[in-house]
Amino acid sequence: MKATVYYAPGDVRVENVPDPQIVAPTDAVVRITHACICGSDLWFYRGEAKAWQPGWRTGHEWMGIVEGVGRAVETIKKGDRVLAPFSFSDGECEFCKKDVQTSCLNGGFWGGADNDGGQGEAIRVPQADGTLVKIPASASNDEGLLAAILPLTDVLGTGHHAARSAGVRAGTTVAVIGDGAVGLCAMLAAKRLGAERIIAFGRHPARLEIARRFGATDIVSERGAEAIARALEMTNGGPEAVLECVGNEGSMAMASGMVRPAGTIGYVGVPYGSPKGLDLPRMFEENIALRGGVAPVRAYIPELLADVLAGKLDASPVFDMSVDLAGVPQGYAAMDGRSAIKVMVKP
Amino acid sequence: MKATVYYAPGDVRVENVPDPQIVAPTDAVVRITHACICGSDLWFYRGEAKAWQPGWRTGHEWMGIVEGVGRAVETIKKGDRVLAPFSFSDGECEFCKKDVQTSCLNGGFWGGADNDGGQGEAIRVPQADGTLVKIPASASNDEGLLAAILPLTDVLGTGHHAARSAGVRAGTTVAVIGDGAVGLCAMLAAKRLGAERIIAFGRHPARLEIARRFGATDIVSERGAEAIARALEMTNGGPEAVLECVGNEGSMAMASGMVRPAGTIGYVGVPYGSPKGLDLPRMFEENIALRGGVAPVRAYIPELLADVLAGKLDASPVFDMSVDLAGVPQGYAAMDGRSAIKVMVKP
Repeated sequence: MKATVYYAPGDVRVENVPDPQIVAPTDAVVRITHACICGSDLWFYRGEAKAWQPGWRTGHEWMGIVEGVGRAVETIKKGDRVLAPFSFSDGECEFCKKDVQTSCLNGGFWGGADNDGGQGEAIRVPQADGTLVKIPASASNDEGLLAAILPLTDVLGTGHHAARSAGVRAGTTVAVIGDGAVGLCAMLAAKRLGAERIIAFGRHPARLEIARRFGATDIVSERGAEAIARALEMTNGGPEAVLECVGNEGSMAMASGMVRPAGTIGYVGVPYGSPKGLDLPRMFEENIALRGGVAPVRAYIPELLADVLAGKLDASPVFDMSVDLAGVPQGYAAMDGRSAIKVMVKP
Repeated sequence: MKATVYYAPGDVRVENVPDPQIVAPTDAVVRITHACICGSDLWFYRGEAKAWQPGWRTGHEWMGIVEGVGRAVETIKKGDRVLAPFSFSDGECEFCKKDVQTSCLNGGFWGGADNDGGQGEAIRVPQADGTLVKIPASASNDEGLLAAILPLTDVLGTGHHAARSAGVRAGTTVAVIGDGAVGLCAMLAAKRLGAERIIAFGRHPARLEIARRFGATDIVSERGAEAIARALEMTNGGPEAVLECVGNEGSMAMASGMVRPAGTIGYVGVPYGSPKGLDLPRMFEENIALRGGVAPVRAYIPELLADVLAGKLDASPVFDMSVDLAGVPQGYAAMDGRSAIKVMVKP
């Protein structure tokens, strides 16, 4: 089959690789119908994820149709349409039971050295019972609905994790750092949880238009210290919840510089590098909490999928480019150059 | 009157200063009967709190007898025996109502440039109604009971804040970083909240003896990375709650290196300097939260005082040295040299 392989910063290629096989009795093999390129894929694409090695598979957001299952798989069968979170998990260990499936004792992440990636024609799925979630067969002929389900594999669950970690509820004033797909989804999630006011930061017209559709009530175009000052002024002392959806030094500084005393930073931007952007002295003085991390999106899929199927939740406007498998390298280039917010891949 | 004044690192002096006066109608003046030297006083004593200026008053832990009140003070009167938290607060603003009195919009901290300190004969108390808590007159002749109340001004409330911030409850496995008075009080607070296992780190026999009295069930004598490895091994993956009671790079590294996935660091050690000890990538991968900060001990005094008065809570074993006002400089030297855990001052 064909799948995407990392070669070097700026260089991913679609190549022939071995077909996936059932290896363990808990495995499934899935033919991929939809996948995505993620903002976090840009960390290796830009050479900032130093551990990445040539030959590693890419892609961790995908859904498809089951082609076969191992003998121990009980809840999924051949022909089922399924989606997967961006990590696999057994559903049974201490951490899965605590709904932190990303820390599963028998889990792992798609792609890299050891596992198939989602940006390919098919994928071997370890821990199929704990990982895969069925999509009703009735959705199969509705590409719009499938596009609304696809963000549950990562970005919408991740935005929701930021909002949940920051304690967003009815009436909360929220700031969202980041205008990428995760930041936009965090706005949608905050609105869904009842946030009263949602402050977005940015200058990119197409992104800000989606921000407004997703619930942003205020747009701040200033950057850095000026953005902090503006947010403090607008909210008379800072938003109670700041959703940090970038993960670099500047975004951490913005988040920790504006959050209201006794408030919470919900952070989901992968923090490559040190935490030195965090204004820890201010956080200490004002009892500001830092919560979040890699999103256990598996925990959130049932709740969010129900809303998507009911027509109440749709993050698909973040997809502003679609490619076939051969187009994956162009998709990476478009996201790297910020000419695309998020790329859908249809193998 | 006489009070302690900061001159330079390693140099505090007891000098004549102006007597405190009622300035605002919400003020009180209190004659100090008991005060303490705090581990956090060592930050300026060691020259690490760069903002400290010669002439600033010292001491933020104290209790005493009210000598007079301003005309707007309603809940406190002359002759009352009172204790104060280490900050003053109006009790009425948004943050006081949220029980984060340390962020009070009209509050502040004892000592420094603007306020009297606690290491003196008397003190002007702004926001007396919001700040002071009455001690029953029946305690007046019981020096043992007064010594058990004194830690409520800071260290016991601070240890309790670490435990509460980290979510300690019945059955929790807890690690406490720091064998100073706050660390020891954090053990006592964790035990009071029902922790099942309390791991202490240290090698100092007198401190470890108190640790055991306060509830420590396990002692780890290793340091740094070896201490992390030992804690991970003992708990099969890390304690769910780590109480960080030091605030330096090494202690932050220990805390963030050992806490269990999905666990919480409750931090109360004043973080002078950068947060670079924090293992943010691990915290992100394992959804570890960082909560805490300067302890709103005013919020905790009623609950903890009730237990102290009932004879169920006594942190006074942390006091292993007592001095009069003239002895304050020797008290600082003893705590700096770790020959004393915590010094009581009786002016």
